Amino acid sequence: MDVKAAVAVEANQPLKLETVQLDPPQGREVLVEIKATGVCHTDAYTLSGKDPEGLFPSILGHEGAGVVVEVGKEVKTLKPGDHVIPLYTPECRECKFCLSQKTNLCQAIRSTQGKGVMPDGTSRFSLNGEKLHHFMGTSTFANYTVLPEIALAKIREDAPFDKVCYIGCGVTTGIGAVLFTAKVEAGANVVVFGLGGIGLNVIQGAKMVGADKIIGVDINPKKRPLAEKFGMTDFVNPNELDGDLVSYLVELTDGGADFSFECIGNVNIMRQALECCHKGWGVCTIIGVAGAGEEISTRPVQLVTGRVWKGSAFGGARGRTDVPKIVDWYMDGKINIDDLITHTLPIEQINEAFDLMHEGSSIRTVLTY
Amino acid sequence: MDVKAAVAVEANQPLKLETVQLDPPQGREVLVEIKATGVCHTDAYTLSGKDPEGLFPSILGHEGAGVVVEVGKEVKTLKPGDHVIPLYTPECRECKFCLSQKTNLCQAIRSTQGKGVMPDGTSRFSLNGEKLHHFMGTSTFANYTVLPEIALAKIREDAPFDKVCYIGCGVTTGIGAVLFTAKVEAGANVVVFGLGGIGLNVIQGAKMVGADKIIGVDINPKKRPLAEKFGMTDFVNPNELDGDLVSYLVELTDGGADFSFECIGNVNIMRQALECCHKGWGVCTIIGVAGAGEEISTRPVQLVTGRVWKGSAFGGARGRTDVPKIVDWYMDGKINIDDLITHTLPIEQINEAFDLMHEGSSIRTVLTY
Repeated sequence: MDVKAAVAVEANQPLKLETVQLDPPQGREVLVEIKATGVCHTDAYTLSGKDPEGLFPSILGHEGAGVVVEVGKEVKTLKPGDHVIPLYTPECRECKFCLSQKTNLCQAIRSTQGKGVMPDGTSRFSLNGEKLHHFMGTSTFANYTVLPEIALAKIREDAPFDKVCYIGCGVTTGIGAVLFTAKVEAGANVVVFGLGGIGLNVIQGAKMVGADKIIGVDINPKKRPLAEKFGMTDFVNPNELDGDLVSYLVELTDGGADFSFECIGNVNIMRQALECCHKGWGVCTIIGVAGAGEEISTRPVQLVTGRVWKGSAFGGARGRTDVPKIVDWYMDGKINIDDLITHTLPIEQINEAFDLMHEGSSIRTVLTY
Repeated sequence: MDVKAAVAVEANQPLKLETVQLDPPQGREVLVEIKATGVCHTDAYTLSGKDPEGLFPSILGHEGAGVVVEVGKEVKTLKPGDHVIPLYTPECRECKFCLSQKTNLCQAIRSTQGKGVMPDGTSRFSLNGEKLHHFMGTSTFANYTVLPEIALAKIREDAPFDKVCYIGCGVTTGIGAVLFTAKVEAGANVVVFGLGGIGLNVIQGAKMVGADKIIGVDINPKKRPLAEKFGMTDFVNPNELDGDLVSYLVELTDGGADFSFECIGNVNIMRQALECCHKGWGVCTIIGVAGAGEEISTRPVQLVTGRVWKGSAFGGARGRTDVPKIVDWYMDGKINIDDLITHTLPIEQINEAFDLMHEGSSIRTVLTY
């Protein structure tokens, strides 16, 4: 079938809106009509050409929501009409990783997903006979896409696509890191480095579970009002401090953060995030993605005296299990997504959405079809 | 009173056996007759002068066992005749750290302990009128010593001093790291770097809780037989490998270690210990003490994909609560200490005990009074 897609023809070039060809879903695959999709830094990172695993030409996009149109013959858990959120981290419930009950990093289709193809090793997308790569197993920058059944979370039908699509990445990454990775407790002191979309979701996650102090750290004071709306209790601008940031945070938290989160991708800040943690039990969770080859460092005594350094991908959320719950939390008013979606544009303006992100004038832009 | 002590007169000099003066215990202090003491790398580290916090002249020793002789007026939980193990990590059960239930790093007397004095800021030891520093709050290289009540674990009276003194440091550090810090589970695959006294105790801890593969890594093949006796299932000598050690360990564990332990103090090996962990859930626990100023490094993706980097001091054990249990395990035959104590010497031969350790010909030497 013919579908409308924004094609990443080559690195560091604007996306090109094209009519591309989509093959029907195979055995355990599902055809989904994408109704809305967010534009995320990861899309921009791959488009920039800096992602060593980036493939071109391809159809980017991994933060979508839509409706099942058709299912392959072996699909058992989904039917046409179901509302779904695509999952770049699938949940097969059968692999060693899923069965461990210790991680969300299902590896069932990891190798083919990384190669830009479906689990059978082929692509469903083509343009004038030339194969297009899938991206993160989702390719939501097309109004129809094909995904494995295990890479779709079934969600309630009254949830608005142009809001809950954000749960497909940013919301879950931030809130999930608080709930599923760090397991923040009521009464905890939390320090959040970076008040972008992820940081704001960390803040509202921390508020939701009853944290006491929720300290936001950012060099841009304009981030303060919205962060406060989301639950930040204290704002720290490192540029306005005389002394050492870590010492300041340790004092502000009466001994150190119970939990800290790095939501930027800066290896120096990852170190500060660890070292501002409380001796004996402070847990630092890295969410930000560092540049290729960059390394984090610290003195081992930081760990020996009880601090824990960990990381989170997709918020530690098991997509099919947890994403529907997070949609419920949004629908129940327990979390705020609306204020994070600063722009909604038609897919035709996708390159403008990237510009808004690069300028820093959007938190999240959602594209609709 | 006059007591017999091995005095560390100055850095990098042999200890000197002297008759020193010991003042009686104050309000919450306890006079203990030390019956036996181990000699540990930490004593040697401070004696070498490399410890930036080392103080001289002082009475070293922190791995003792003995009998209560006299208690200060405010002491409530101990009486003369009680058998005890001195604790360099006390357990006050009242400070923020003890009450957190998340750490064993009681801070009640931390600042004075670090200054080589009792909690009231003074020393009980003197030599010819000159003050001697306490060490680690324990100073077990004297046949009588004074400690705060909170720094003594009361143990059963049938436990032999010249064996259970080792529980005052090495045994608890290794076994505790497995049980209390990493919380190794039955069926887990475990990799232990360094098969000295700590590594062997990690191995027997892992065996005790039902680990499957227990892989020991050491460049000295002579360590193999005893490690196997303690429960090691696989021995890896990095010098005998053609390829990369981390890749080899990942393959040997079918994806990576569920738990790894660094028992050496080498920052490069701390990195290998993290990176050989299983994606998604592998936990690396650092036990070894690195050189002053040395740093550990890794790529943050190691953490973001689910590995956890933590550390352990005194095995995460709460001294007064857990040390008596470990004594019971020894008396019940659940753990082996006898094979680790390769030498027993009178206190007069203390410098020989240090020589044996430096030569690598002892695992643990115990001194008796």
